[in-house]
Amino acid sequence: MPQLRQDPTTKEWVIIASERSKRPDNFKKTEPPIEIPAYKEDCPFCPGNEHLTPSETLAYRRSGSPNSKGWWVRVVPNKFPALSPEGSLERKEEKGFFRMMDGVGIHEVVIGSPIHNQLFPLTEDKQVEEVLLAYRERYLALRDNPRIKLIIIFKNHGQAAGTSLEHTHSQIVGTAVVPSNIRKKLQEAARYYDDRGRCVYCESIQEELHFKKRIVLDTEKFVVLQPFASRVPFETWIIPKEHQASFGLISVEDSKKFAKVLKETLFRLYSKLNDPAYNFVIHTSPIKDEQEDYYHWHLQIIPRLTTPAGFEMGSGIFINVSFPEETAQFLREN
Amino acid sequence: MPQLRQDPTTKEWVIIASERSKRPDNFKKTEPPIEIPAYKEDCPFCPGNEHLTPSETLAYRRSGSPNSKGWWVRVVPNKFPALSPEGSLERKEEKGFFRMMDGVGIHEVVIGSPIHNQLFPLTEDKQVEEVLLAYRERYLALRDNPRIKLIIIFKNHGQAAGTSLEHTHSQIVGTAVVPSNIRKKLQEAARYYDDRGRCVYCESIQEELHFKKRIVLDTEKFVVLQPFASRVPFETWIIPKEHQASFGLISVEDSKKFAKVLKETLFRLYSKLNDPAYNFVIHTSPIKDEQEDYYHWHLQIIPRLTTPAGFEMGSGIFINVSFPEETAQFLREN
Repeated sequence: MPQLRQDPTTKEWVIIASERSKRPDNFKKTEPPIEIPAYKEDCPFCPGNEHLTPSETLAYRRSGSPNSKGWWVRVVPNKFPALSPEGSLERKEEKGFFRMMDGVGIHEVVIGSPIHNQLFPLTEDKQVEEVLLAYRERYLALRDNPRIKLIIIFKNHGQAAGTSLEHTHSQIVGTAVVPSNIRKKLQEAARYYDDRGRCVYCESIQEELHFKKRIVLDTEKFVVLQPFASRVPFETWIIPKEHQASFGLISVEDSKKFAKVLKETLFRLYSKLNDPAYNFVIHTSPIKDEQEDYYHWHLQIIPRLTTPAGFEMGSGIFINVSFPEETAQFLREN
Repeated sequence: MPQLRQDPTTKEWVIIASERSKRPDNFKKTEPPIEIPAYKEDCPFCPGNEHLTPSETLAYRRSGSPNSKGWWVRVVPNKFPALSPEGSLERKEEKGFFRMMDGVGIHEVVIGSPIHNQLFPLTEDKQVEEVLLAYRERYLALRDNPRIKLIIIFKNHGQAAGTSLEHTHSQIVGTAVVPSNIRKKLQEAARYYDDRGRCVYCESIQEELHFKKRIVLDTEKFVVLQPFASRVPFETWIIPKEHQASFGLISVEDSKKFAKVLKETLFRLYSKLNDPAYNFVIHTSPIKDEQEDYYHWHLQIIPRLTTPAGFEMGSGIFINVSFPEETAQFLREN
């Protein structure tokens, strides 16, 4: 019998399709890894090619001048940005009916290592910490821009996850609008809070830690779990245990702990599933809601092991062919 | 300058990324077509293999007994259904916090031709009409099931669209819940109606026909257009001109006209883009809202030419690297 499960944070339904279900190890990629060199002459993210990117907005280097070699993390504006810092915030109308505005925003690239073929899950802890500190530092800088309403930090790894760039990188986008589905997520969380006086994410963590079966890792500051209503096989969330609406409020100390947990989680996915394509996204409150009691930032990892099709598009209900209880156990085991 | 465009029917934003934009003919697939035979011995949808599927719920055949050869359209329950007709509609709770229920619903497959390698856009008009009549007939039958709240009819074509089955088919799913993002779509439409006293889809059609640049085909009963806030390159909608909330209200006569327009649209995508992977979905009201003034059924074709990545997942904002005005013109030209 298939199950319909409801995500308590969004009220969205997911089908766990038991008739089609696969064992966790069925998702392991069988193709051999593609050989990638450690340096590529024409890669704009490789050291020595700093002139191929727009001028950096942040870099961690021991010495040397900006936009030259010697960095270990480098942040630059995206050369082909999805959004642009210029333009007007005024709504415009086409024929009085259709609404549009200039694509105002910030779009930056975080180059996570000077080594071209460095995979994020295989990066040294110290280096992952530095990448996370760069996320934090750029978040705090962009937050001061009064035109930016929401900051989204994400990483795409592998062709199936929508990237063709090999050199390890992540992206930071600041938008001048709050997207309607973020509003909906906030509204659901606020409704829960109004009803029960507690944050729905805090409650979820408590329930999951009690139930144990969907926990991947339980550390001092962060919980790694596969949610009750996982939309895809191996969907994995990392949630801070203490209530915090915005990633912008994380301390330097906790950000280092977050790095360690993120790396360990990605490493488990990497080794158990043989380097799957994945996206990760930090879900955080809009800037003006950073102090809210009802929202709770977290990072979602979405491995791209299956392809959503017409049913998902038409209904918004994902069909998941695996049980999070089983995939979490598979990741828990060493 | 990138543009942020808002879908008037959902209030969702889309980025039209002009800096990354591609010309319409850049999306043409370059791989040669895969050779597929007209009959495959082990295909459960090929004639003579009727015993390999569950017993048919509908078939169009001149003579002969059910579940034997001689049909031109055949509808069967999905052998590996995402939802099942059995089970209880009661909400259950896991640990008092997580809500779930039995995966109650109907999941059928519409086998669109007895010929294994028949592509939908290359099918004769008469045969496409028969497929659409089967959609209609099954919709009307499922509507009478009091447990079914919403009926979703869709087709997945090609691996990138989430199917590996070659034999042309589409699917019908009846769900026992109204998904939260369908509720949101209805709420947005209702809000527009309350505000202006008109259906937002009716208004869109009127504006688009006036503006002309995003129209692909304009026929007596149906408009084919690429929406103002197209989420992906070549997103294409077919909308009935007359207000009608549910596909279940279509007449036999109009269903034949709809078939002709659908086939012509898919044929243009097929020939101009060299057989792209695509999903199509009929968006229709929940069964209890079939008479509403504010919702308007339509078919959405989503070609799978690009891969949504972390930003789309984190924000719900799609980045489209093409202008619907340009892709619509490309499809309009012969």
